[in-house]
Amino acid sequence: MSQEPAWFAEPPLRGLEQRFETRSRLFRQKSQYQTIEIYDTVPFGRMLVLDGAVQTTERDEFIYHEMLALVPMLTHPAPRRVAIIGGGDGGSLRRVLQFGTVEEVWQVELDPLVADTCQKYLPTISAGSFSDRRARVRFTDGARFLTEWRDAFDVILVDCTDPVGAAEVLFSEQFYLDASKALTREGILVTQSGSPWLMGDELERALDNVGKVFGLVRTYLASVPSYPGVLWSFTLASNVHDPLRVPRDELARRLDDLNVLPDYYTVDVHFASFALPRFLSERFKEPAPSATSGQAVNGLKGGRGFDLFGS
Amino acid sequence: MSQEPAWFAEPPLRGLEQRFETRSRLFRQKSQYQTIEIYDTVPFGRMLVLDGAVQTTERDEFIYHEMLALVPMLTHPAPRRVAIIGGGDGGSLRRVLQFGTVEEVWQVELDPLVADTCQKYLPTISAGSFSDRRARVRFTDGARFLTEWRDAFDVILVDCTDPVGAAEVLFSEQFYLDASKALTREGILVTQSGSPWLMGDELERALDNVGKVFGLVRTYLASVPSYPGVLWSFTLASNVHDPLRVPRDELARRLDDLNVLPDYYTVDVHFASFALPRFLSERFKEPAPSATSGQAVNGLKGGRGFDLFGS
Repeated sequence: MSQEPAWFAEPPLRGLEQRFETRSRLFRQKSQYQTIEIYDTVPFGRMLVLDGAVQTTERDEFIYHEMLALVPMLTHPAPRRVAIIGGGDGGSLRRVLQFGTVEEVWQVELDPLVADTCQKYLPTISAGSFSDRRARVRFTDGARFLTEWRDAFDVILVDCTDPVGAAEVLFSEQFYLDASKALTREGILVTQSGSPWLMGDELERALDNVGKVFGLVRTYLASVPSYPGVLWSFTLASNVHDPLRVPRDELARRLDDLNVLPDYYTVDVHFASFALPRFLSERFKEPAPSATSGQAVNGLKGGRGFDLFGS
Repeated sequence: MSQEPAWFAEPPLRGLEQRFETRSRLFRQKSQYQTIEIYDTVPFGRMLVLDGAVQTTERDEFIYHEMLALVPMLTHPAPRRVAIIGGGDGGSLRRVLQFGTVEEVWQVELDPLVADTCQKYLPTISAGSFSDRRARVRFTDGARFLTEWRDAFDVILVDCTDPVGAAEVLFSEQFYLDASKALTREGILVTQSGSPWLMGDELERALDNVGKVFGLVRTYLASVPSYPGVLWSFTLASNVHDPLRVPRDELARRLDDLNVLPDYYTVDVHFASFALPRFLSERFKEPAPSATSGQAVNGLKGGRGFDLFGS
């Protein structure tokens, strides 16, 4: 007796829908905050879904987590204290703990059931990081958590759900203001910032807000095949350190010190990820003095950016 | 009376399926070679489909065509004679004709009905290029066409369907051998080479074959949202010109000469598109002496590449 394959899909966005063939659903439970599901999928192995939105998968989690964590961590000369807001799957925590300079990481997830479920069903993603003696795991509101700190963190990673709905506060001007106070003077903030073409309005608003608080703002890209639209954006903000101005050999030296060979990130990928296609860079014009970098200038002016899906 | 939205999808690949909401199907006809369809879609406007596979759309065609045509055309110091194998939609032809140095372009499409249909339903893609006095439009077998030329073309663009099925001959060693003879000594070949993660085996074979014929082979990437897996690969081959060794200011000067501002391509994007994520660069190790470029070296060795969807 043959059986039709089952498929999981997020709700369509702007007339696009990506479907994943599934073998089974391994877990489903409503927590105080959201519905948590784990699917076993054909393309990506096990997949974490929160309120119907894909969060991470066994097979491609390395792309998102390396690009979220390694770009700011390698831009900072010696990160010692780090905060992760969200990231209950532990994939960011694991990458931060790869740095020998790191003395403590505050892992601040709202929903304890997310962390429990991931450690049970997706153990390869955190790979034991929650038990690392440098990890300070807290289950609380990340935005409120940051208001309690001053001049404390070298790097803050915002590893949250998309800038639509519940996580919207994590893209507000007030949040960036609180984060900037919680950072050291040389501190670096990075946030996942959604699909540049499917969530362009939200990205634009986030960039506006972060630009009101930080002197330097840069958006970079990576291709995460399990996410809607695949092309994904991250936004880095600082008042001191520019990821495009770290010398190549210095970046290579810091990467060597990790003693872990990333699967996606390379020094070339670091710089390349900031080269936005023109229709995106024109749309998401960085409010920071980005023109100071030769890297971002190509001598052509006067074009317009646009919404790929605009009608 | 409300109506369910209609959806178009390619057959799933490795458990992944991308679906497009459609307003209507505007055209469907079987030619001598294939079934040609035009859909009006919500996300991408009008879309050309051949034998069930998405070929191009009104909204995102610029990404694929700019990256296929501009990277080799700007790498060559002064392309005068160009051949396009496939590309019946005219999008590559249009970009090639933007170059003032170009004297003639041989546009060689197998299926006249593809060109007719695209000029009727997707006129913005070719934008009148088929009537340009420098265009030599031929409807014939592209592989055979190239065997009739020696030392003739500065650039050959292979703008064909995917390296699975009918177009497989366009990725064979014999084809690359014939193309290398049809090229001038300084000539450059570029081919679309499919999804690096959904068609990785085919890309691997194509790179093997092209490496037997050309001294320098480089794969580069762009994100084309209407294609399966979104991340798309192109492969450039030459015996003389290396796209990573054109000085930035020279590239910017050539781009200025175009007098057309591309929507995706920039000088930064040119270099960035060759920075492959490590799991891909390790898997698709270029057979050419690519290590001669500082751009492609990051000091880390010994990792492995892998198939993202491998089980």
